[in-house]
Amino acid sequence: MTADLHIDAARLLARIEALAAIGPNVSDDGLHRGSCRLALTDDDRRGRDLVTMWMRDLGLDVSIDHVGNVVGTWGVGSGAPIMCGSHIDTVRTGGRYDGNLGVLAGLEVIETCQQAGLTPSRPLAVAFFTNEEGARFAPDMLGSLAYAGGLTAEDAHDIVAIDGARLGDELARIGYLGPVPCPGTVPAAFVELHVEQGPVLEATGHRIGAVTGVQGISWTEVTIVGQSNHAGTTPMNLRRDPMYVAAEITTFVRRLANDIGGRQVGTVGRIEPRPNLVNVVAASVVMTVDLRNTDNEHLRHAEALLAEFLAEVAEAEQVEITTRSLARFDPVEFDPRVIELVEQTARQFGQLPLTMPSGAGHDAQMMARVCPTAMIFVPSVKGLSHNPAEHTDPADLALGADVLLHVMLALAETGSLLRAGASA
Amino acid sequence: MTADLHIDAARLLARIEALAAIGPNVSDDGLHRGSCRLALTDDDRRGRDLVTMWMRDLGLDVSIDHVGNVVGTWGVGSGAPIMCGSHIDTVRTGGRYDGNLGVLAGLEVIETCQQAGLTPSRPLAVAFFTNEEGARFAPDMLGSLAYAGGLTAEDAHDIVAIDGARLGDELARIGYLGPVPCPGTVPAAFVELHVEQGPVLEATGHRIGAVTGVQGISWTEVTIVGQSNHAGTTPMNLRRDPMYVAAEITTFVRRLANDIGGRQVGTVGRIEPRPNLVNVVAASVVMTVDLRNTDNEHLRHAEALLAEFLAEVAEAEQVEITTRSLARFDPVEFDPRVIELVEQTARQFGQLPLTMPSGAGHDAQMMARVCPTAMIFVPSVKGLSHNPAEHTDPADLALGADVLLHVMLALAETGSLLRAGASA
Repeated sequence: MTADLHIDAARLLARIEALAAIGPNVSDDGLHRGSCRLALTDDDRRGRDLVTMWMRDLGLDVSIDHVGNVVGTWGVGSGAPIMCGSHIDTVRTGGRYDGNLGVLAGLEVIETCQQAGLTPSRPLAVAFFTNEEGARFAPDMLGSLAYAGGLTAEDAHDIVAIDGARLGDELARIGYLGPVPCPGTVPAAFVELHVEQGPVLEATGHRIGAVTGVQGISWTEVTIVGQSNHAGTTPMNLRRDPMYVAAEITTFVRRLANDIGGRQVGTVGRIEPRPNLVNVVAASVVMTVDLRNTDNEHLRHAEALLAEFLAEVAEAEQVEITTRSLARFDPVEFDPRVIELVEQTARQFGQLPLTMPSGAGHDAQMMARVCPTAMIFVPSVKGLSHNPAEHTDPADLALGADVLLHVMLALAETGSLLRAGASA
Repeated sequence: MTADLHIDAARLLARIEALAAIGPNVSDDGLHRGSCRLALTDDDRRGRDLVTMWMRDLGLDVSIDHVGNVVGTWGVGSGAPIMCGSHIDTVRTGGRYDGNLGVLAGLEVIETCQQAGLTPSRPLAVAFFTNEEGARFAPDMLGSLAYAGGLTAEDAHDIVAIDGARLGDELARIGYLGPVPCPGTVPAAFVELHVEQGPVLEATGHRIGAVTGVQGISWTEVTIVGQSNHAGTTPMNLRRDPMYVAAEITTFVRRLANDIGGRQVGTVGRIEPRPNLVNVVAASVVMTVDLRNTDNEHLRHAEALLAEFLAEVAEAEQVEITTRSLARFDPVEFDPRVIELVEQTARQFGQLPLTMPSGAGHDAQMMARVCPTAMIFVPSVKGLSHNPAEHTDPADLALGADVLLHVMLALAETGSLLRAGASA
């Protein structure tokens, strides 16, 4: 493996710009241009058509499966392919790099190998998975989940969008209800390059993150029912105020995350009081608590402490609290051999990699169910994500793609750690 | 003064039911019937027409002024009248008694005197004031404010409703742009019977409140701007979370009210985060803080402590906090002689009155600017207000009207404390 082989940064950026121009979305201040390509909309179709055309231009064998996942394979070598990829759907206020980078860097890896006359021992493949964001259809990471066998195509087709459309109908409508069955071909390994979507790399001065896994996620919707009253006429000691209780829960979540420490995070992002008026003690509040940890034991501990606190605060204020789980995913651990390979490769480029978990979900966590998998992160300026102002320095985009290139080549080499070791 | 003269409870209740049937509003559970008569709507006109018809049926001299205040005067005796009254407009989810009780009990006082052949030394008058609730036009208590000289009719006419209509146009449209100028005739005294709209009388086992004044009100809108981020990828120590800050402020407001004690109340009733999503650290939060106290010094102290806390918490979380005053009213003190008369009268009916401030605003606080004024409260079951489930026991409604009757008769008597003493 030689670090003097580089992807073409200008070509990578040109493809990113061309894809971002489909479904353009300008920030409120007019300064930033992102994209809105909700899954299986016409804009998503136009994005898919562009990337699929690029795959065909590179001579890739393009397969489209029953849930619209698209895989382009460069058929040099034999055996299961080394696959990379990500997604090209976006949230409504999407940036230019989230997902797109991992797909377009995959094209760049293959084109670079082709132009250098390399013949890897295994095929190289690049995939984009359907509906990773979950902004139009639930669940998120739907395409990779189906690819990995966690959801049947039939069940996926019956999922209904927030706008009422059926997923199977939308796939057919945009021409991406493909003939290839799910689950898909198991690759020899999977690597996903992605922007961090958080501030850690920037804050710690790293340019490459070697991602060790994905945090476990616990989302709870908390409904607090108290007694609505006049804010002027109701003495403090006679109040059963759900807004006050929501505030106690919110400050508790902060203390909980700090007390558990380590990778624990906790967020109250949504709160909806009724009637939400200046001079009325609220009747009820619906709020959410988002808890995440890389360690499932710690996450369960956090959930238990939250439940205890809810019971205490309900008793103290004499309100009724009910909860509903909105999501619960166990943490995912990536393959230590692939993680190590990412680290080694980063060091070959003169970079000290940061080993770190991902706080967000990614297609790679689904692929980790079926093959040795890891991820490469590059910095997100100010940690901004799902925002037209999302930004990564072009040099970091190119560096990430270079690391992806060399990790894939190493994985494809005869006698690699993966062929020698047992599969994860 | 003899306590054996009573109003006709059945007639009072019948008028309350007849008025409540105009603009009917049933609670979500179908169990309670309230009213929706937003000021100067067609339903308000129908309510006004009914009450005005009742005034004329009793032979009252009905005057309508430039802002639609209606005064019915029973012209026995000489000199300035003893006036009672309240309002018949409601909030969107109004109850049957809020405002209406004080007006219809006034009719009952006069009809009872007429049937008993009494000839009070002064005229008795009953008024209903325009737009007390402020649910359609700001400010609330608009009609009584204009009656007392705090707002010109011209300025009032140019006020625009939440639905875009101009107050002067709406007055003319419904036929209540009257010929009588504002400010209105100054009465010798003003007494308002009203439901408490709070839980204190019920909780303390009293049936009559002798209202000593109206709390001062301080409404502050607080805008907190932090940094929106991904809830999974942003470590706790890098967060600038306006939702967390809003929660700290909300729990501070509770502590503040408890620490100051006495009549201090504090409420956070409205909170609007952006973007308000489960997995996003909010970018900004707009919230309100409602502080009230009967003592202006204590209220100013509470405001100062809040401002200090906002500065501290903004510094600690590195967010930007700006504030805007939405309302600031000094406390109002009613006339001690009229308060004492309410207490004496309650005791004559075998009741131990509770002297208490009003937490809500009332027309009486505007009339207190021009003449000796007080209020009589009767209990609100569970303190429910601005709710179709608002309820007061019929016996308490009748008792309140009886107390009003005898307070007005005492005020009208020759040689009363008011004629002897100096005006407040």
